[in-house]
Formats: sequence, C-alpha cells, structure tokens
Amino acid sequence: MTRTIRLALAATGLAAIASLATAQAFEPQKAQELRESHMKLMGAHIGILGGMAKGEVEYDAATAAAAAETLSALASAAAAGDLYWVEGSSSDALEESRALPAIWDKTEEFESGQTKLVEAAMTMQDAAGTDLAALQGAMGALGKACGDCHETFRQPEEE
Amino acid sequence: MTRTIRLALAATGLAAIASLATAQAFEPQKAQELRESHMKLMGAHIGILGGMAKGEVEYDAATAAAAAETLSALASAAAAGDLYWVEGSSSDALEESRALPAIWDKTEEFESGQTKLVEAAMTMQDAAGTDLAALQGAMGALGKACGDCHETFRQPEEE
Repeated sequence: MTRTIRLALAATGLAAIASLATAQAFEPQKAQELRESHMKLMGAHIGILGGMAKGEVEYDAATAAAAAETLSALASAAAAGDLYWVEGSSSDALEESRALPAIWDKTEEFESGQTKLVEAAMTMQDAAGTDLAALQGAMGALGKACGDCHETFRQPEEE
Repeated sequence: MTRTIRLALAATGLAAIASLATAQAFEPQKAQELRESHMKLMGAHIGILGGMAKGEVEYDAATAAAAAETLSALASAAAAGDLYWVEGSSSDALEESRALPAIWDKTEEFESGQTKLVEAAMTMQDAAGTDLAALQGAMGALGKACGDCHETFRQPEEE
C-alpha cells in the first residue's frame, strides 16, 4: 500500500513539473542549493546502506531499516511536489549547477528515472531490516537508479 | 490512507531512536549538518506556503500543492528513520548545534512533536491545492507544530 501511495505521489509530482513554466516557486539559485541539500541527504542515507552492503560497517538491522525508511521518504519527497527543477537552474545557466539541460529536454525519461528511484528505495525499505543478504540484494537496483539518472542528467565532476 | 502510513512510519522511526545508543549511524558533526539541510528543505517549502498564506505571493494551486506534498514527505522522512539525533550532537557538545539536550532528555515529548508535525503537514497536503482559504486554514497548526518544537528543543539564535 505504501508502494501505491508513493507511486501516486510521484505521478502527482510529475504533473507539477509541467506547471512550473507559469509558476516558479524557487529562484534558480535557491532551487540549485535545495537540490544539493536534498541529494546530500539521500546520499548520506544510501551511504549507510552501502557501507553495510560492502561489509565496511557491521550490519545492524535497526539502523539499516531506519536509513532505508528515511531514504524512501526522501526519494518520494524529491519526486512528489518537485519544485526543484526550475527553468534557468541548469548547468548552462548556473556555474554551480551540475543539472544538465537534458532534464528539461527529456522530461519523460527524467520522470521515469525518478519513478525508478522511488521504486528501488521502496524495495530497499522492505529489505534493509530483514538481513544483510536482503539488503545486498536490494542494493543493485538502488545503485542503478542513482547511476542511470546521474549518467544522463548530471554533469560529470570537474577534474 | 496516506495518513495512516505516514503515522505508522513516524511510529517506526521513534522505535529507531531507542536503538541509536548502540548503533549510531552518523558521526555527531555529520548528523548536525544533515539535520540543518533537512530543516532548510522543510523551511523552503513552508516558505512557499507561508508567502501565499500572507498574500505576499499570488496563490497558485499547483505550486501550493507541490510544496505541501514535498513538505509532507520531508516531515515524514525526518520522523521515519530518524538517524539524525545521535548522542554527542547537542548544543552542549557541538558549537554549531542548536539542538538542546532536552531532545535526549524528554524523548516522549520530542517524539510527540514530530508526530504533530507529520499530522499538520498531511493536513496542509490535503488543503493547499484546494484554495487560498483552505491553505490559510491549515497554516496555523503547521506553524504551531514548528514553533512548539523549536521553543522547547531548539536553542534561540544568538543576538
């Protein structure tokens, strides 16, 4: 049921993107900063899970479950209302931005990527508290959801 | 239904707090930074709603709904897995921290405050896209949830 609702939220958010042209909620610079904060939060929680998956940190069911729950809610938040991707906040427009113009050019693919992240995070949410093997099993799809989207839509870090 | 699930998530998160003594996920300094990012994100989305409520920004149903959805998911994320409030990250321990030791001393009251925020954010989620009057009607409880918790658990900003 959580799954259905999260996906419904994601779908609603996608509709919101279309409306941004007429009603931009955040100034481009602020949108860029907020996106970075949001990514940092998701990265920190994925980091906990990744550390356990790789055996760098001892597996702890409660901590893993907590990290996965927050991650899932953050992924859902990023996809839900989605006021972050305003015009004028791409890497072409802002020096600090690594958001490629493709985000605005390939909207459907971008939205599909967001949905995949929400799904992978929900799968992790179901798995993380079970045991280490389950966590490891859910890590691949989660990493792929992150990586696929970054590959297409995020500017590589400068050397 | 969303409501039930969000509240269930919040309740699960509260159980996770109890386990933090033995399994701290984030170092205190990092936890403090992540909390700040999370608060900044919630504040930015509340800011959109507050600006419309006060008539400083023209009411736009789609933007208001999007802001409220993200806010609600962020509130839920903050309460859900909740690995932020680790020992050693209070205002007594870290110079940058405004998290009063009361967070760790009055756990039940703190958890109750988190639940109230989740509830108020969900009410706003139902209201924000309806019309300006509905948004304004939901603003009071939301502001109170923020304020009550900050009053008890957050150090005032230095003069």
